[in-house]
Amino acid sequence: MRLSRYFLPVLKEDPKEAQIVSHRLMLRAGMIKQQSAGIYSWLPLGYKVLNRIQQIVHEEQQRAGHIPLLMPTLQSADLWRESGRYDAYGDEMLRLQDRHKRDMLYGPTNEEMVTDIFRSYVSSYKSLPLTLYHIQWKFRDEMRPRFGVMRGREFLMKDGYNFDLTKEDALHAYNRHLVSYLRTYERMGLQAIPMRADGGPIGGDYTHEFLVLADTGESEVFYDSQITDLKFGDRQIDYDDVAQGQAILEEFTSRYARTDETHDEALFAQVPEERRRTARGIEVGQIFYFGTKYSEAMGATVVTETGERVPVHMGSHGIGVSRLLGAIIEASHDDKGIIWPEGVTPFHVGIVNLKQGDGSTDSACEALYRELKAAGLDPLYDDRDERAGAKFATMDLIGLPWRITVGPRGLAENKVELTSRRTGESEAISPQEAIERLKTIYQPVFAAAYH
Amino acid sequence: MRLSRYFLPVLKEDPKEAQIVSHRLMLRAGMIKQQSAGIYSWLPLGYKVLNRIQQIVHEEQQRAGHIPLLMPTLQSADLWRESGRYDAYGDEMLRLQDRHKRDMLYGPTNEEMVTDIFRSYVSSYKSLPLTLYHIQWKFRDEMRPRFGVMRGREFLMKDGYNFDLTKEDALHAYNRHLVSYLRTYERMGLQAIPMRADGGPIGGDYTHEFLVLADTGESEVFYDSQITDLKFGDRQIDYDDVAQGQAILEEFTSRYARTDETHDEALFAQVPEERRRTARGIEVGQIFYFGTKYSEAMGATVVTETGERVPVHMGSHGIGVSRLLGAIIEASHDDKGIIWPEGVTPFHVGIVNLKQGDGSTDSACEALYRELKAAGLDPLYDDRDERAGAKFATMDLIGLPWRITVGPRGLAENKVELTSRRTGESEAISPQEAIERLKTIYQPVFAAAYH
Repeated sequence: MRLSRYFLPVLKEDPKEAQIVSHRLMLRAGMIKQQSAGIYSWLPLGYKVLNRIQQIVHEEQQRAGHIPLLMPTLQSADLWRESGRYDAYGDEMLRLQDRHKRDMLYGPTNEEMVTDIFRSYVSSYKSLPLTLYHIQWKFRDEMRPRFGVMRGREFLMKDGYNFDLTKEDALHAYNRHLVSYLRTYERMGLQAIPMRADGGPIGGDYTHEFLVLADTGESEVFYDSQITDLKFGDRQIDYDDVAQGQAILEEFTSRYARTDETHDEALFAQVPEERRRTARGIEVGQIFYFGTKYSEAMGATVVTETGERVPVHMGSHGIGVSRLLGAIIEASHDDKGIIWPEGVTPFHVGIVNLKQGDGSTDSACEALYRELKAAGLDPLYDDRDERAGAKFATMDLIGLPWRITVGPRGLAENKVELTSRRTGESEAISPQEAIERLKTIYQPVFAAAYH
Repeated sequence: MRLSRYFLPVLKEDPKEAQIVSHRLMLRAGMIKQQSAGIYSWLPLGYKVLNRIQQIVHEEQQRAGHIPLLMPTLQSADLWRESGRYDAYGDEMLRLQDRHKRDMLYGPTNEEMVTDIFRSYVSSYKSLPLTLYHIQWKFRDEMRPRFGVMRGREFLMKDGYNFDLTKEDALHAYNRHLVSYLRTYERMGLQAIPMRADGGPIGGDYTHEFLVLADTGESEVFYDSQITDLKFGDRQIDYDDVAQGQAILEEFTSRYARTDETHDEALFAQVPEERRRTARGIEVGQIFYFGTKYSEAMGATVVTETGERVPVHMGSHGIGVSRLLGAIIEASHDDKGIIWPEGVTPFHVGIVNLKQGDGSTDSACEALYRELKAAGLDPLYDDRDERAGAKFATMDLIGLPWRITVGPRGLAENKVELTSRRTGESEAISPQEAIERLKTIYQPVFAAAYH
């Protein structure tokens, strides 16, 4: 993309309404615009990152064997009356009536609807196991929306639902989700720690939240420092392997890690003192096995091999897609702006032309731009007639992890500068070397994709 | 995808509620499920086609230089009060109140919001031309939703908005949209004819609807038969070339082609009688230049080169993304089911194993499946333990354009059958030849993509 033809409305001033750094940087970098309290337009740069994140979530869900579909945003109140949640859900549910005065709501989650889909078509144990998921806009009418996309009202979430014959099978689905989530967050450059969560009115041990450590997190968290040494890495996974899933669950959840909601001082005291940590965290996902709560209430049953009709065991598993942008920025920025991890960066590299209008720098930049695209990379070329300082400031603010700077002095020696946004280090190398270096840098990102 | 692990709930019986063939086939092929009147879940197969269509729309918009963003589904009523449309819009607007009793609505279109985005950031002619678009769910509270996704209430639309300094520039944007739409529909295997439309209360000559001819179309159309001979093909387009855009507009709109809304008997009578045609058509898109209507009402102005402040010239341009599935099926089906054009088919090819459980057919099918995927193709392998007739019926119903049938008799001679869904013709060739043939068949589909 040529910046002269893009729509990137960066702000010079810090917006007053932003209380936390990710909100401030998303506004300043021209990623979002608030349209109503807690409701945002995703400007082109923000939309691009949102898509990168969605793509990773889709790939990892499909790698795990989960099937994508798409449920609508508006739901009939009748479905929620069946589960008893229409009255139980508080003011966060946005209720409305259509022109025929039928009660509707803007879905805050989809347990009822997905259970309705299941019961409409599935009646045999032979169709199990089954996990359906979607990435769709939700609405929760927060009393005080704030922190930008971190606590918005209209937000994008991946929610997936497993349907299994037995509790044991459903717990394997739970583990599959845990594994796929660990992979998902690592591809985004995040460390998200599974922490024991509160089962709420349903209770049970089978729920974990995934938290990213950040000073601005909404939750206080308590953990054994050994947990931050765990990396998922590029291990080979067989998502049908029950023992492997269980082993990974144990590896990642056996050390102490809880939020203030489930924190237990006595248990925490058993962690060796030098490994006890207290910090703040941002919740970016949750997995939950809830058994037959919805299947019994809504009649989602299957006939077993022996002819018995039984309610299916279910769980629901969510990733906060839009809030992940905020979480990534909270975890990765400096005083100049955002620092995108390579896995989610909107553009792979920025090209800064130091002397726009100069024949040789212009043509060197155009050649770089063309060749980077031919190599499958997505460059942003700042071809505006601006001074170098303004171009650097924009690149730093929007946080592309790599920048190529092209000026007449370097070009005289066939050199450009390749600069890392994270370290600030620069190297003077030939344009061809810069392209090769970037291909090498992004090779793991492309290799991680799932088709 | 292995069918044994997919979620493809095909129906044996014709659903009673479906009045037109596309609705019936989408229900029977397990593509959609109605959740409330005019509100659908997109089951996995339907969601996959919806994504293929979205992808083509995105690519052709970006090829034309248009910039994607994403506006929210819910909008503040205040924005619509500025334009005067809050009161003018009838019962099709879904109005609601949030917990603080603020008036909101589910966006039926986005002229107001995109104009608000523009005026918030753009103040100079130097930022023009600019076209912003999104693909987002809309809601129109139809009195009598029907015909499945053809006239739903919650529907997916691409709507784009151009901002230009002068009427002349805006008409070039209009032509750019016309050209990009012609390419878009052709990639989907559709012929969509631009027809002069009714400008409504704003009037003006600058609006065309795109109609697909189909017996079940909601509009009666009148046209010169020469127009159906026009093909866009793979011509090279320079979207900055004003003369080229104008020439294509003239080529595709100078012959008589109107819907009943704008039909003029006297003009039609000037078409030679043997070329006069009357038919029915489905509207799948519309382009519209409306000048300064919204920019004046909402203060979207720029400062010109001479320091004058002027309202920008705008247009809006829509493609009915979700309804396109219905339109494509109306235009391409037979009594056995859907016939997907290669450009939008959910899977590129189906593999039918005639003797599931037989070692050699199973391993031949697995090898085909693996090699087709390695070749970048997306196969659906029917690995269920079902008889051949049921497998063929499912493949015919869901409409994959190509099928490979693998049985022990053929394999003894290293042959499989490659069958065209459209013609029904089969060829006995080696598995390797079948893969090569499919690579050749889909090469134009991949070549048409825009990165």
